[in-house]
Amino acid sequence: MSQGWVLLAIESAAILAFAVSGIAEGIRSRMDAVGLATVGFVTAFGGGTLRDVLLDRRPFVWVERVEYLWLVVALVLAAPLVARRVQRLPAWPLQWLDALGLGLFAASGTALALRADMPATVAVMMGVVTAAFGGVMRDLLCHRLPQLLSDHRPYALCALAGSCVLVGLRQADVPPELALLVAAGTGTLLRMLALARGWELPRIVGRAARAGDRPGRGPS
Amino acid sequence: MSQGWVLLAIESAAILAFAVSGIAEGIRSRMDAVGLATVGFVTAFGGGTLRDVLLDRRPFVWVERVEYLWLVVALVLAAPLVARRVQRLPAWPLQWLDALGLGLFAASGTALALRADMPATVAVMMGVVTAAFGGVMRDLLCHRLPQLLSDHRPYALCALAGSCVLVGLRQADVPPELALLVAAGTGTLLRMLALARGWELPRIVGRAARAGDRPGRGPS
Amino acid sequence: MSQGWVLLAIESAAILAFAVSGIAEGIRSRMDAVGLATVGFVTAFGGGTLRDVLLDRRPFVWVERVEYLWLVVALVLAAPLVARRVQRLPAWPLQWLDALGLGLFAASGTALALRADMPATVAVMMGVVTAAFGGVMRDLLCHRLPQLLSDHRPYALCALAGSCVLVGLRQADVPPELALLVAAGTGTLLRMLALARGWELPRIVGRAARAGDRPGRGPS
Repeated sequence: MSQGWVLLAIESAAILAFAVSGIAEGIRSRMDAVGLATVGFVTAFGGGTLRDVLLDRRPFVWVERVEYLWLVVALVLAAPLVARRVQRLPAWPLQWLDALGLGLFAASGTALALRADMPATVAVMMGVVTAAFGGVMRDLLCHRLPQLLSDHRPYALCALAGSCVLVGLRQADVPPELALLVAAGTGTLLRMLALARGWELPRIVGRAARAGDRPGRGPS
Repeated sequence: MSQGWVLLAIESAAILAFAVSGIAEGIRSRMDAVGLATVGFVTAFGGGTLRDVLLDRRPFVWVERVEYLWLVVALVLAAPLVARRVQRLPAWPLQWLDALGLGLFAASGTALALRADMPATVAVMMGVVTAAFGGVMRDLLCHRLPQLLSDHRPYALCALAGSCVLVGLRQADVPPELALLVAAGTGTLLRMLALARGWELPRIVGRAARAGDRPGRGPS
Repeated sequence: MSQGWVLLAIESAAILAFAVSGIAEGIRSRMDAVGLATVGFVTAFGGGTLRDVLLDRRPFVWVERVEYLWLVVALVLAAPLVARRVQRLPAWPLQWLDALGLGLFAASGTALALRADMPATVAVMMGVVTAAFGGVMRDLLCHRLPQLLSDHRPYALCALAGSCVLVGLRQADVPPELALLVAAGTGTLLRMLALARGWELPRIVGRAARAGDRPGRGPS
């Protein structure tokens, strides 16, 4: 019961964070209202919906609580009022909002997979999918290489860490509400640290490769 | 029963319209037979299949009526015979065919969601997804920015209007067959009007933005 | 029972082949570890998972046998050790590995669809989806036009041939294990032949089209 309440609060906060960051990005790309709504929905609900399809879990959060759909609509309608201010924003407030969504979704995704009796490895993977694939779907829709594959900064790994913390704490019989909060905090803080410190993932092979190589291209 | 019959006729006409418009576009892009079949299938069945996965509804229309798959195959086999004529076609016949599919799918998608006891808001959204996401998947497969996000002409909004009309008429206890036909007509006619009059959606922020901005790019 | 065993062996070999070929391609694109893991998972599990979602079949192979997830992780961790060698590889070893995965997945996908009581046409289509859509998802994630639509060499058609062979043999009451092996061999050998002989699919309309046409673009 109590876990259900904390889980709901976490999922709601994550949806709000991702909806705002998705719509803000749409504003910066100067989309129309339909574009904003599409990008907002996909960023906010894409990861969780993919997780629920994979877990065969129904109803989706946006079916159970239709208010979430109206929330995104309200944000889209409010967009013209704040558009200029959003365009002048520096990058970090949106990145921190995104980090918040990342940590929260990693925790809630893992918890829901554990509830569905998934093995720990699958639960961790579901946490990462919930946290990272809303953004991947947004990037695919907007016709660009997913940041996940291109920016070489830890993103999925922060979600992975949060998910592993949740599984570990649950196996150590830590109360579920506490485990959720600690896991969400771990993922979010790691992402913020990665952003603040400019951490970069090494590529598997250094830059001194053959000339003419283009990242994001296979052997074809 | 009777609603089932009208619904089936509408879904069939929508599939045919989208299959023809998808394959015609593949011909214009000078694809091979596999490309035509892939684009034809995805355009015709993509939106409805996504809707059914989200509604957890089985069997899919193309499993229940395998003839639809053969129809697409037949269209692909006939493609070389009509290819030159299709390439010389002006844009409007394909756009009108697409408008027909849009209105029909918006109505049938909303009706099927209502039948699955979805709330009205979700039913409207399912109508829009059914009508618009076959085209989005086609554009993603063909590696281009979805028209939905790029052409700034009302497309999803016409589907939205048709879906809202269906929900409104059903709540006013209009007979289901009549509601379906009026809703499909509304979506299709609005889209045709939008094309004929050149209606454009306003971007959230005008064109006088910072130089160097490129639409379809986020803050990254 | 015995069919189950052969089916499992075939599915495992296909997953291994596609995981290795996906990760090798990621290495050649000089991705980081997260990129490698994402591309490896999607290439290896994408087609089968899409098939299972469409068939409403659970558990997924990577939930039932979590070892497969660890296998991909192990391959990613081993990547730095072999990266230079992989980059110097000619194209054909990866193409043959991919051909192996193609034939195996076409056979296993069709067999699983038949088991789920799908009509023969749908079963053949599921075989093609299983074999070809892992690669399509990989290409979409890596932000490029799917090879399926762009390289004009028979790929999906080889999978189609293998799937048809399986359906034919099963309808002729050939023992299931034998049918699986013959079907997988057919798909793989046809693909290898197509690569070795340089077979090309004709485009629907010849190259002498209007100047300025770009393949992969619609009329827009």
